Amino acid sequence: MLELRLVQGSLLKKVLESIKELVTDANFDCSATGFSLQAMDSSHVALVALLLRAEGFEHYRCDRNLSMGMNLNNVSKMLRCAGNDDIITIKADDGTDTVTFMFESPNQDKIADFEMKLMDIDSEHLGIPDAEYQAIVRMPSAEFARICKDLSSIGDTVIISVTKEGVKFSTAGDIGTANIVCRQNKTVDKPEQATIIEMQEPVSLTFALRYLNSFTKATPLSETVTISLSSELPVVVEYKIAEMGYVRFYLAPKIEDEEMNP
Amino acid sequence: MLELRLVQGSLLKKVLESIKELVTDANFDCSATGFSLQAMDSSHVALVALLLRAEGFEHYRCDRNLSMGMNLNNVSKMLRCAGNDDIITIKADDGTDTVTFMFESPNQDKIADFEMKLMDIDSEHLGIPDAEYQAIVRMPSAEFARICKDLSSIGDTVIISVTKEGVKFSTAGDIGTANIVCRQNKTVDKPEQATIIEMQEPVSLTFALRYLNSFTKATPLSETVTISLSSELPVVVEYKIAEMGYVRFYLAPKIEDEEMNP
Amino acid sequence: MLELRLVQGSLLKKVLESIKELVTDANFDCSATGFSLQAMDSSHVALVALLLRAEGFEHYRCDRNLSMGMNLNNVSKMLRCAGNDDIITIKADDGTDTVTFMFESPNQDKIADFEMKLMDIDSEHLGIPDAEYQAIVRMPSAEFARICKDLSSIGDTVIISVTKEGVKFSTAGDIGTANIVCRQNKTVDKPEQATIIEMQEPVSLTFALRYLNSFTKATPLSETVTISLSSELPVVVEYKIAEMGYVRFYLAPKIEDEEMNP
Repeated sequence: MLELRLVQGSLLKKVLESIKELVTDANFDCSATGFSLQAMDSSHVALVALLLRAEGFEHYRCDRNLSMGMNLNNVSKMLRCAGNDDIITIKADDGTDTVTFMFESPNQDKIADFEMKLMDIDSEHLGIPDAEYQAIVRMPSAEFARICKDLSSIGDTVIISVTKEGVKFSTAGDIGTANIVCRQNKTVDKPEQATIIEMQEPVSLTFALRYLNSFTKATPLSETVTISLSSELPVVVEYKIAEMGYVRFYLAPKIEDEEMNP
Repeated sequence: MLELRLVQGSLLKKVLESIKELVTDANFDCSATGFSLQAMDSSHVALVALLLRAEGFEHYRCDRNLSMGMNLNNVSKMLRCAGNDDIITIKADDGTDTVTFMFESPNQDKIADFEMKLMDIDSEHLGIPDAEYQAIVRMPSAEFARICKDLSSIGDTVIISVTKEGVKFSTAGDIGTANIVCRQNKTVDKPEQATIIEMQEPVSLTFALRYLNSFTKATPLSETVTISLSSELPVVVEYKIAEMGYVRFYLAPKIEDEEMNP
Repeated sequence: MLELRLVQGSLLKKVLESIKELVTDANFDCSATGFSLQAMDSSHVALVALLLRAEGFEHYRCDRNLSMGMNLNNVSKMLRCAGNDDIITIKADDGTDTVTFMFESPNQDKIADFEMKLMDIDSEHLGIPDAEYQAIVRMPSAEFARICKDLSSIGDTVIISVTKEGVKFSTAGDIGTANIVCRQNKTVDKPEQATIIEMQEPVSLTFALRYLNSFTKATPLSETVTISLSSELPVVVEYKIAEMGYVRFYLAPKIEDEEMNP
């Protein structure tokens, strides 16, 4: 039997909104330690990894490991029916092929339950080795989202270049070229507004803006985003979920890097 | 001669927005007692009844009964040109086939008049007998609108079931099933947030969500909605218009009730 | 060499938004005295004239007169990437065929530069003689925009009639007729809310609402608009840009004036 009660239900709504553009169907894996998901996007280019640790739930009961296949668009439709202040409980009985989402309004006046059939989804679980990254950039998530959106109006790919002084985002397209430089800045009023660069060596990699823009759907989950870069490794774009876990997106760099450089 | 002056002009704007999705052409009936409308929707399934009592107008002059046929979409286009604080006057001279809407800004700096040709519309006036209802639910109108909208993302019809404890809205569709229960609750901070159930006997009826969703266009007119239910009678969904009257929607239940029950 | 630094960068964003619906490609002319543009709309019916005086820039360097042909849609795409608080610098080196827009965030943490190729655009500069107008109306720009939008839902053309008492906007269409009268009013709380009429003689002219609606895209530039009217002269619709200049739109009246009068 599975019963997971999350007081801050809006968080689950945001998680779904952050990944449903990229992934159509996926298995949610429940174990004693947490609720997780790993899935490739439909074009098999990007990888999404979600973790919500058991400790973050008000109540977490998972008697045995369970993999629940769901259409994320349908889950999103159901979660949209939850109010932003609702408590959400996910339930599944042993031996059934359905999952139930229960939404309770804060004053308990309104209780909704939504039942959905589970799907069988083939998926191999990729092991993602811990890696050392040449450069790790932490910056305000809204700033990163704005930059990806702005550059998309000019070009299709972005070159992300990190030096000690800052991180540069460059693109080129039919109408011209664009460079946006964010300087390292630790002396801000609020720590979440800082741009912090940890660098072993300079790195410059090219990515498809289309995917980065999809990743930024996770912006409401966290005020900061961490971008980890190394040559010949997929970039990791991570949005931490306060005290619970994270949504991480992986994307391989494009190889035609130098040719693209404007 | 007809001359009706309504200080709170935004109210007339809201009335039009609330019924124009359902009804295309209709007769507005003016008599010494008030301004009213009764019309079937274009598919002849739902009925709308509007009443604005004479006392609610700042000035109300109606020398003889008058039935003015109008295209509601055109009336809505004209009323949208009225500012939210404007005073609206409806005028019609005897023997003409036009109606004039006059909008005055609060400081009288801007005065607009819109003249529209009247139409001949055949319509029989249905007598709606006063009925005893098995159950009457009064609840926040925004809550009712939210529930109808949420359930529409899952199914096409809703079963409304009333017991002493509360009212349950259920639907089923391809992606799953949904139940939303609103408990009776009289102890709220503001009376318009209460959910109050007056019940003679339990009742459970099925309705097309499409029509209920149209009815909820009247939500801006009132903070509460009253839903009156009886087996074998059309449901009445009523939005009171403060100190003036009401907009009421009538809709017959679907007969395939039991089969739909998930 | 050209280098123009504008602290209030949002102003340049608004200028582009105000004219790009009307004009596709245009030459921006820079001289020692200012930054200007004059262009016909694509159907050669309306004329736009923009002036930003040198004194309005924090830094203004223009070594020799320069005419820079740009696609306004592309410029707008680039300017949309500037934050509303950004400082914008326009740069062009001698002998190159590109222009660079540089955006600096207020705290200098983020610096973006967008480079765009210039185009060769044929354009004769029309001399616009100073004229005496029969009537000049100054009114709140939002009011004028609202009136043009409202009347567009009824008809295609508007008759603007000025008398000492006020200005009347009239239209007629399939669904009826509309008249909106704004009375002269100088005794308002804020001077920008006044409607002021300077009239030599009454005037009544007909214009295509489609163009007036395009002109009102400039509404964010100024709280007031000035409309200068004379028989047999194009109307001038002017939005002043505080301490810097103006955007002016010119439109010839329609000749079938009397026939249209409802």
